[in-house]
Parts: sequence; structure tokens; C-alpha cells
Amino acid sequence: MLHFDSDYMEGAHPAVMQRLLETNLEQSPGYGCDTHTKNAERLILNHCGLDSGKVYFLIGGTQTNATVIDGVLARHEGVLAAETAHINVHEAGAIEASGHKVITLPQHDGKIDANDVKRFLDNFFSDETHEHMVAPGMLYISHPTETGTLYSLDELKNLHEICTKAHIPLYMDGARLSYGLAASDTDVTLKDIAQTCDLFYIGGTKTGTLFGEALVVRQPEMLPHFTSLVKQHGALLAKGRLLGVQFETLFSDGLYLRIARHAIEMAMKLKRAFIEIGYKAYIDSPTNQQFFIIPNEKINELKNIATFELWGPIREKETPVRFVTSWATKECDVDSLISQL
Amino acid sequence: MLHFDSDYMEGAHPAVMQRLLETNLEQSPGYGCDTHTKNAERLILNHCGLDSGKVYFLIGGTQTNATVIDGVLARHEGVLAAETAHINVHEAGAIEASGHKVITLPQHDGKIDANDVKRFLDNFFSDETHEHMVAPGMLYISHPTETGTLYSLDELKNLHEICTKAHIPLYMDGARLSYGLAASDTDVTLKDIAQTCDLFYIGGTKTGTLFGEALVVRQPEMLPHFTSLVKQHGALLAKGRLLGVQFETLFSDGLYLRIARHAIEMAMKLKRAFIEIGYKAYIDSPTNQQFFIIPNEKINELKNIATFELWGPIREKETPVRFVTSWATKECDVDSLISQL
Amino acid sequence: MLHFDSDYMEGAHPAVMQRLLETNLEQSPGYGCDTHTKNAERLILNHCGLDSGKVYFLIGGTQTNATVIDGVLARHEGVLAAETAHINVHEAGAIEASGHKVITLPQHDGKIDANDVKRFLDNFFSDETHEHMVAPGMLYISHPTETGTLYSLDELKNLHEICTKAHIPLYMDGARLSYGLAASDTDVTLKDIAQTCDLFYIGGTKTGTLFGEALVVRQPEMLPHFTSLVKQHGALLAKGRLLGVQFETLFSDGLYLRIARHAIEMAMKLKRAFIEIGYKAYIDSPTNQQFFIIPNEKINELKNIATFELWGPIREKETPVRFVTSWATKECDVDSLISQL
Amino acid sequence: MLHFDSDYMEGAHPAVMQRLLETNLEQSPGYGCDTHTKNAERLILNHCGLDSGKVYFLIGGTQTNATVIDGVLARHEGVLAAETAHINVHEAGAIEASGHKVITLPQHDGKIDANDVKRFLDNFFSDETHEHMVAPGMLYISHPTETGTLYSLDELKNLHEICTKAHIPLYMDGARLSYGLAASDTDVTLKDIAQTCDLFYIGGTKTGTLFGEALVVRQPEMLPHFTSLVKQHGALLAKGRLLGVQFETLFSDGLYLRIARHAIEMAMKLKRAFIEIGYKAYIDSPTNQQFFIIPNEKINELKNIATFELWGPIREKETPVRFVTSWATKECDVDSLISQL
Repeated sequence: MLHFDSDYMEGAHPAVMQRLLETNLEQSPGYGCDTHTKNAERLILNHCGLDSGKVYFLIGGTQTNATVIDGVLARHEGVLAAETAHINVHEAGAIEASGHKVITLPQHDGKIDANDVKRFLDNFFSDETHEHMVAPGMLYISHPTETGTLYSLDELKNLHEICTKAHIPLYMDGARLSYGLAASDTDVTLKDIAQTCDLFYIGGTKTGTLFGEALVVRQPEMLPHFTSLVKQHGALLAKGRLLGVQFETLFSDGLYLRIARHAIEMAMKLKRAFIEIGYKAYIDSPTNQQFFIIPNEKINELKNIATFELWGPIREKETPVRFVTSWATKECDVDSLISQL
Repeated sequence: MLHFDSDYMEGAHPAVMQRLLETNLEQSPGYGCDTHTKNAERLILNHCGLDSGKVYFLIGGTQTNATVIDGVLARHEGVLAAETAHINVHEAGAIEASGHKVITLPQHDGKIDANDVKRFLDNFFSDETHEHMVAPGMLYISHPTETGTLYSLDELKNLHEICTKAHIPLYMDGARLSYGLAASDTDVTLKDIAQTCDLFYIGGTKTGTLFGEALVVRQPEMLPHFTSLVKQHGALLAKGRLLGVQFETLFSDGLYLRIARHAIEMAMKLKRAFIEIGYKAYIDSPTNQQFFIIPNEKINELKNIATFELWGPIREKETPVRFVTSWATKECDVDSLISQL
Repeated sequence: MLHFDSDYMEGAHPAVMQRLLETNLEQSPGYGCDTHTKNAERLILNHCGLDSGKVYFLIGGTQTNATVIDGVLARHEGVLAAETAHINVHEAGAIEASGHKVITLPQHDGKIDANDVKRFLDNFFSDETHEHMVAPGMLYISHPTETGTLYSLDELKNLHEICTKAHIPLYMDGARLSYGLAASDTDVTLKDIAQTCDLFYIGGTKTGTLFGEALVVRQPEMLPHFTSLVKQHGALLAKGRLLGVQFETLFSDGLYLRIARHAIEMAMKLKRAFIEIGYKAYIDSPTNQQFFIIPNEKINELKNIATFELWGPIREKETPVRFVTSWATKECDVDSLISQL
Repeated sequence: MLHFDSDYMEGAHPAVMQRLLETNLEQSPGYGCDTHTKNAERLILNHCGLDSGKVYFLIGGTQTNATVIDGVLARHEGVLAAETAHINVHEAGAIEASGHKVITLPQHDGKIDANDVKRFLDNFFSDETHEHMVAPGMLYISHPTETGTLYSLDELKNLHEICTKAHIPLYMDGARLSYGLAASDTDVTLKDIAQTCDLFYIGGTKTGTLFGEALVVRQPEMLPHFTSLVKQHGALLAKGRLLGVQFETLFSDGLYLRIARHAIEMAMKLKRAFIEIGYKAYIDSPTNQQFFIIPNEKINELKNIATFELWGPIREKETPVRFVTSWATKECDVDSLISQL
């Protein structure tokens, strides 16, 4: 069976695994107070082009989102997000469980339009009853989005400008950030993100680590007493150096982007094949998630040889499906799949 | 100045005030363990045609919604509601503050369509990832809705049937219930509501009391240990008998519906006048909230003599406005307003 | 039957009731944006000797505590309180329900000793693992305490000094504040409280109003966006002017203290009688709650003529009991009780 | 430098690391729906002597405690625990953050006395005002306790009996369970725990895994919809099989107990040496945490060669300290330390 259901089906990239093995019996203080973690922080800030700032290492994406959002928002505030945002749809209510509303904005191919944000903020603050409403306290975007699409640098700058004027931080969920950075159709670099987003996380789980997300905050005072909050959210790893070691490896020798590029190549190969055969892209994604509309019979046929996701409920004749590649996708598997199309 | 901004501008109906005065120096145990409260419960259950069941008296609408919803939902559940629902828009995030998501459905003149509920439930339970999503734990409707519209009995029965099949309670926010029951264009009685809604509250604040909402629950086991939860939500009134006395009065001699009918008459008089003059109804409401689309110049003119609400941001030429009547609206005020149109 | 179980058995003081009646059909905007509320705020700030500051009117004590504490604390902080504090024992977990720990300190006759606070803070901040612990974010005291005792002015000043040094606000629960101010054995005035406490509330429910507590905050920036939080906690009264009218009346013509003094006189008469007969005071309270140790047989005998509370579980031979007086206690009732001792 | 500060200073036991390496490039579905996880569950239930039941794998201890407690308690309930309990002291308020009070009981060498539980429950349910109090919803114990002590089988049976009568589950925090089971002075086996505790977790982080705790629940209906709650708490690991693989290894060939026994041997060797030299045990612990009272000068001297923890603030002459051994402690390190005593 060929597997294209997700980008977290394997363990860690062999180089990461190797470093975990080499450092396994080192003795270090817990909770991220070790030298690997310090080093990983330094490497990441360098890659971001930041002289100052702080990096926190957490375990998973939902956890990171819930902890950051809880850390930034005041009690009367909620977080603005696209209706398709992961925090709105697939985090089992983690944001609300910590007391905050996800205020939804329309999505356009998974993205938020700056004009929608502006209109929302204008309406909110001009509404005489706004003290009875949940105040917008930050803006959440994902890049790539949940449907694999990417913001352009101009779009990020616009969002950033609107947020800055409204004194609300812009936060980017980078669960699949590597695949955004490695896309060929993007003008956004990690340094751009570090300049336009007040907070963002660099996903490890989906790009080469066993687990782990690196949260970057340009102005650390935005997250006061954050270690306590991480602990309170059950997100403080006892053996914190495991996160340090893994991100140290990813951010040495360009590993992070290199392995992401492989995923993109595999995704593009798949995309070309589907298109050539005549299937339509459901969403035009430049990253490692590819969406096609396929006849239901073909879906049933493909299910015999490959795993992949239906994207929404089954439709009458043809249904959107998602194929995901990753750093670990083997080219021979892609070729096998293509040969069966 | 004539006041049409809301239905809570005065104190209590004189008969209610009189009873508060007469009972003022009675001594009674606190927290609703008094005979007035017991009597009010009995009267209300009678009016509802319920042999069993329980009535809890709380202070305000937002408080009642937050406490009930928190009492019914499990931790992984959210509440289904129209996108225009009061709990979604105007309760400052009270539902989320107690940890629960408001899952929004489309609104049709403020109402929820049974088909939308059905479709949502079908999609949810057929989604393989639904354990990662907030489960629907109850359905919230308001009657009258936030825009004054009413469900028909058939609509209520349909919603109830769908909810019962899905094992989720149907809850009605009755902040303005009296005005729904007193409308001439309704086929829904209080007894119908008691049969189709698992929980609902009968609003006092907007119909004759100083404050107070009477929550009716047909199967008390739906709200286990509810008094503790009411206390935890800061909603347990020390001098609980004040609620008992007020609802005792409302539910004696048909006072509740009688004073509501007056509000409806005043609203209809206003409506006819606006329509005759040529203004369009923004929403066709049979209850005490009336919405018209009026030229902006006329709005400015009317503002000199009356208070009323703009319904949304000001538009280019003409803008929707809301006029509200209540049990306390004086006919001469309505006539004055009409004469100025 | 004579009633001494609590100080909230009657409605409002007749003068308060009279003003509610007089203003009943006035029309005013909701949620405290009316002139009575403004006036009540001004009167209270005057009585507190404050040139600036803000007064918020809420409905009940548990509600006020939960809302203020939630408003002041950061997410990683808890509130320091005596183990006997109302927030720790009798508020059904309202503080925890909004996410915050009640960190308990030893109680001495219901009071907190400044040395205990100092020791706690010293230990906390010198503990290397304190990021894993709940940080002390404010200090809660009640005055009178839950057992009727009072802080001296020196004690308040000490607590205030320690809190100020540690940058944590001092908050006083004044559910029975009037009875503290009216005691003969106190050197603490309302102005003293306004100088030593960063936030405190002046209880209405137990001293002459139907309901209502007036929260005073010297530096309003301590409670940013507090109206939204009050709404979120379900504590924003639609007909907010009812609170304004009641406190306007209490703080006109010295009514608040005058009616409290009556309760103190009644309590002292009762106390003298119990002591003369030979019963021991369980706690030496100078306020309207009186505690005696009485033989169990005598308790059973008294139960036939009066209501009062057992203070804790019944003991072998004699058990502590509580008798409470209030502004409404009739001297003839006190005399009747005494004659039966 | 010799390290005795904690039992989570190294990575994983080499056998565990080896299995992670061997399975690294396997492809498996996420979130614990893989065969390793199923197998680990089966192995653990076998070791527990349970025919039915369910095992959930979470990442860390604080996270597990917060999620289980939130899963078991109703909104009006709190968790009973010793005042020294990890959930009360060192979890940054994680329990309160999910809305629940930690109700403290006295500790006796870190343990809870069944009589204290009984007395608390009796008092609670006989208190007429208990609806205003946080209801006891479960009992939390740790075994070994935070100070290394152990319950006897009789003690566990007593606690279990009291809890069963009161219909509240007994939950054991087994962060260091292996070291309790491997102690020579214990009559408690894993099967005993599975019979006396309704829920408990078997700690991996401190005994051989990189991370991970295995939560065992005898009656799975005690944790309805628990996967959603795990997700909501940010505790659902994407690559869930990592937990499966690690626990599979620990529970094959008796690895779990074998490596724990080594820690106990090292701890006992250390203990004998301290005692022989004349230092007093601060607490008489039979497990891998050892507490001694040592002159402050000696502490300063030892700090030059070893890391260990002060247990509380420094005292005048001599201060309690904690030395911790683990599966990874090298005997030569223990010998080195002893030689320096």
C-alpha cells in the first residue's frame, strides 16, 4: 500500500534520529534549560534574521496554538481566524477550552483577505455595543493554509500593517511552514515572516522531527511568564533537550529546507501527472498537499493501492481528495501511484 | 424625548412592584428556598402544562444562557446556534469563557432551518476526524429571535425531532418569550414550547420584572447539581424570593400575557404607520421589535425626538433601524412618533 | 419564630424601597449608563475621600469576587486568601471555574497575618521552581471576616505595604463592610479602606438593598475593559439603574452607616445577654455575627423558637452556633430571644 | 560533575532507543491508531491482570493529570489531594485552569490517611450548605508520593473502599510507579493497583522512555469521549506510535521493572552510606528519591562535585536535601559521591 494520507506517518529524519542517538545518554537539566535548546534558539533566530527575540519549543501544533493564544489574549478577547482555520475546525475546541472565542472571517482559498479584517475591525470599533461583544485580540493565519495555499509577501505586509494599526498581534501557524518556504511559487522567506508576523511557529512534526514546534516571538514581552503558561497547558517537556537537539539538527546545514524541497518536488510530480491525465485541481496548491477532483469510481479503484483523504463528504459523481507528500515520500511510491492513474 | 431603544427602560410593572413592596419585610430563607419561589415554580409548571419538571430562577439572560449551556454540555461539546444568536454575538464570550464553542449555523431571518441542523449533524458524524472537532451537544434557538421573528409550531416540532434523534437537547432562549406568545401571527403556545423544548427560559426582565428569568426544564436530571452550578456562575441571588414574588405576580391573573399584548398592539400600530408612509420593513417581525429601512436624513430628523437603534453600520442612503415597544410603552408616545413621521 | 440565621432575610430598607418605587417608571438607558448610577458613583467616591477612581455596581458577592479576581489576575496567577475565606469555602468553586487557584494562608480568627503573607512571598520568589507554581497575583481579605472579626488600621497598613512591595493588589471583600465600619471597637474608616485597599466592594445585599455590591477601584487601569468582563460573567444588570438608585439612597443622609449601627446594637445586646448567662463566645466578634458555644440540649430548646446556624458539625456536648442581626432586626425579637435563654 | 537532581536527565533506555530507530521509517496512521499502540495497550493490560479496560498514552505527567481530572470531574466538582500533591504545588495551576479546585487534605509523609478522607466526606455531605461548596469528585494520590514514600496494600484498599462507597473514583499518579513497584519494602504489585485504583498512570518519562505516560482505566466508560478531550488538552501526539513503541519495549522482557530495580539499588547504596556516616534521613523513603538532613557547610562542599536539590528554603544550620537515582544512574557515580561524603 502506498501512503499519501498525511505528512506525519514516519518517525524523524535519519539525521535527526542520529543526533538523538548520539546525545541520548548525555545528562542535562530538564525543561529546556540545556545547551542544545539554547543553541537551537540561537540558530533559529539567526535564520530569521533576528538579533533579539525568543524561541519556545513545544510539542505539537494544537498545543502551541492553544498556549500562545491563551498567552496573548486578555480575558475579554478572542482570536480572528478564517472559518477554515485549524483552530476553528480541528482542535477539538482547545481555544474555547481556555476561554476564548474564535471569531471567524471568510476564507478565500484558505486565506484571509486584508479587506475583510479591516472591515471587521472598523465595524467592531464603531459599534456602540462592542463592550458586549468579544474583542478581536489577535489575528491567526496559517501558512501554508489548511488547503496548501500561500500568502504573498504583499498580502502578509498588508495584514501586518492592519494589525499593527489596531494593536493586535499577527500570529502565523507554521505547522507546514517548511513546505511554504520551499515552494517554487513563493516570494516569502523566513526572514520576511519574522518581520511581518509578531509571533509564529516553525513546524517540526511534519518536517523531520519526531515531534516539536518552535515558537518564535520577536518581542518576548508579548508573552510574559510564558514558561508558567506552557507548564499550565501541560506543554512543558521534562526532557526539553530532545526538542533542542532536533531543531539544532534541522537548522544546521540547511536540512530543514532541503528535506522540504524534496516533498515539494514529489507533490509537483504528482500534480503534473493528475493534471495531464485530465483531473482538475480542486485547489491550486503550490505545497505538499495536493487536492484533485476525481470520479468516485476512480477513488474506489485507487483505494486498493493507496491511502489518501476524502476532502469532505462524498459527492454524487466526483469528489475532492487530498494527497500529501513529505520529506519521507519515496519517489518510487509516487511513480507507482502515477502509473496506476 | 420618546424612547424606543429597548424593552428594559423602566423598572417593574406596577403590580409586580406592589407585591415586592407588600412582601418587603417578610423574613424568608435565602437562595430560593422560600414559599414564593415554590409557588412561582408551581404556577409556571401549570401554565406550561407540565406535571413534573423544575423551574430555576436566575437574574439575567446572558447569565442564564451561560449557566444552562455549561450545565448541559460535556467538556468536548459545543452549542449549535444561528450566526446571529445572542450567545454568539452579544454576550461578550460568556459561553466560551466557560469553555464551550458556539458552533454557528446559517440564519434565515434570525431562525435556524431544520435542514441545516440535519445536514450539520450528518456531516459531523460521518466525518472520520470528528473526534478532533467540537461535538454538537445542544441546539440553541431564540424565540422571538434577535430580529423579532417567530418559529411556527411545525418548525419547532421538526427541530425537536432532529434533536431527539441525535440525543441533543433543544434549548430556547425566551428573553422576549411573552412577545412571541402574544403575537397574533403565531400558532405556538407556552404548552407547545414545553413539549418541544427540553429546556427554555421565560424572560422577566423585558416583560414586567425588575430582573429575572425563569428556566424551565422538563427532565430535571438534565441539569444535575444545577444549584451548585448556578452558585459557581455567580447567579444565585441571596434574596431569592424576590424572583419568586415577581414571577408569582406575572403568572397570576394572566398578567404576563396581558402586558405583552399591549406591547404587540403598540408595535403593530407603529408598523402600520411606517408602512403606510412608504417605508419598507427591513425584517417582517410580528413581535415587539420592529425594523425599518429609513433614509439617513429622516434618521437624523427622528433622532431629535426619539431614541432608537441603528441596525448595523450606517449605509449610503438609507439604513435599517430598530424601534422597540414594551409592556410600558405609552400609546401617546407611539402617536407622537407617528405624527412626526 | 425568631430569625437570626442571616442578614439577608428581608427585602430592602424602606427608604431604598421607596426610591425604587418613585423612580420605577422613569426611562433610562440600560447597563448602568444612567444618571442614578453616575450619581451613586460620585457619592461613594466622596464618602471614600477619593478624587478619582471608579465604581462598578454588581449584583452579588460571589459574582463580584469572581469577576474582580478574574479581571485582575494574569492566567498564571492565583489569589492569596485565608483558608476560611468565602472564596475558598463557599463560592462553589467560582474562582477556579474562571481558571484561577485560591492559594490558602493560615487564618487567625478569620484574618490573615502580614507575616504569613511575607513569608509566603519570600519563599515563593526564592524557590527555583516557582515557574512551575501558581504565582501570587493578589491578596484577598474580608472585612469583617467570615467570623465577624475586624482588621485594625495598622494591620491593614501592613498588608498594604507588603502587597505594594510585591506589586500585587490588595482586595477587600466588603460583603458586610457596613457592620465593620459601624462597630464600636474599630479604628478603620471607609477612607482608610480606600487608602489601603487597591480594590474593595461595599456590600449592599446585607445592608439595606434588595441586592447589589459597589466595587471601588482607586486606579481604574487595574481593571481594563472591565465592563466586557462583567458582561462575560453574566453580571451586567440590564436595568442597571436599579443598582444606582439603591446605592444613591444608601449613601445619602448617612443611611448606610445608620442602619448598620442598629444591627451592631442588637448584636451587642445579644452578646451581653449570652455572656451574662454564662455562655462562652466562640469567637469574639465586634460585628453583627455572634458566635457562642452552647450545650446541645439548649440548642434543641432554642430551635423551637428561633432560627440560627450551627457553626460546623455537632459536637459531643456543646456546639458553636451563629446568631446574625441586621439593619432589619427588631429589638422585640432580640428581647424575646434573650428572655428564652 | 555527578548528577543526582532528577530522574529525567538522560534520554531513553538504549533498548527503547533501539526500537525507535528500528521502527523509524515505518509508516503508520497518526494519533495512536497504529499496531504498536494497540500492542502496548495489550501488554500493559496483561501486566495489570485486566481482561478489559483501556490504556491511553499521553506525553507528560502534568498533562495526564490535567486531562484525566478534567475528564472525570463534573463542573461543580473538585479533586481531593494531599496538600503536598504535585497537582497542588507544581503544575502551575493546570487543574484550576481547566476549572476545577484542588481540595487539600493533610499529608502524612506525603500520603493521605483514609480517616482524613472519611472525615472530609462525612462533614461535606452533612453540611447543609454543601451546594455552595466544591463537591469532592475524585481522590488523587501519588505512589510513590512526591517524597518517595509508598502506600501499603491495606492503605490502598481502605482508600478504595471509602471512595467506592462515596462514588468517587480513586486516581493514582504513577509518574514514578516503577520505583514503587521495584522497592523491596512494598507489598503492592501492579495488579493490586489495577484492582484498587479506578484510574492510574504508569510513568514512562522517569523510567526509560523519552517521554510518555500510560493511563490505565479499568472501566472505560469513566472517560467518555476521552480522545476528544486529549486533543482539546493539546495532548494528542501526531506520531502516536512513538508512545506505543516505547511502552511496547518497556513491557517486554520485564524491562520496566528491571531497570527500576537498578535505580532502587543505587538509592539504597546511597542511603546506607549517608546513614552510616551519621546523617539523618529527612524522610524514610524506600524508593529512588532520598532525603537527608545535612549541615549547610557540607552542602556547599558537595555542590562542587554533585548536583542535587535543596528541599525547601535553606535553614539555619542544616537543611534537607534530595538525591535522586534512576535507571540510568551509574554505580561508579554513586561510589564517587559516597567517597566524598
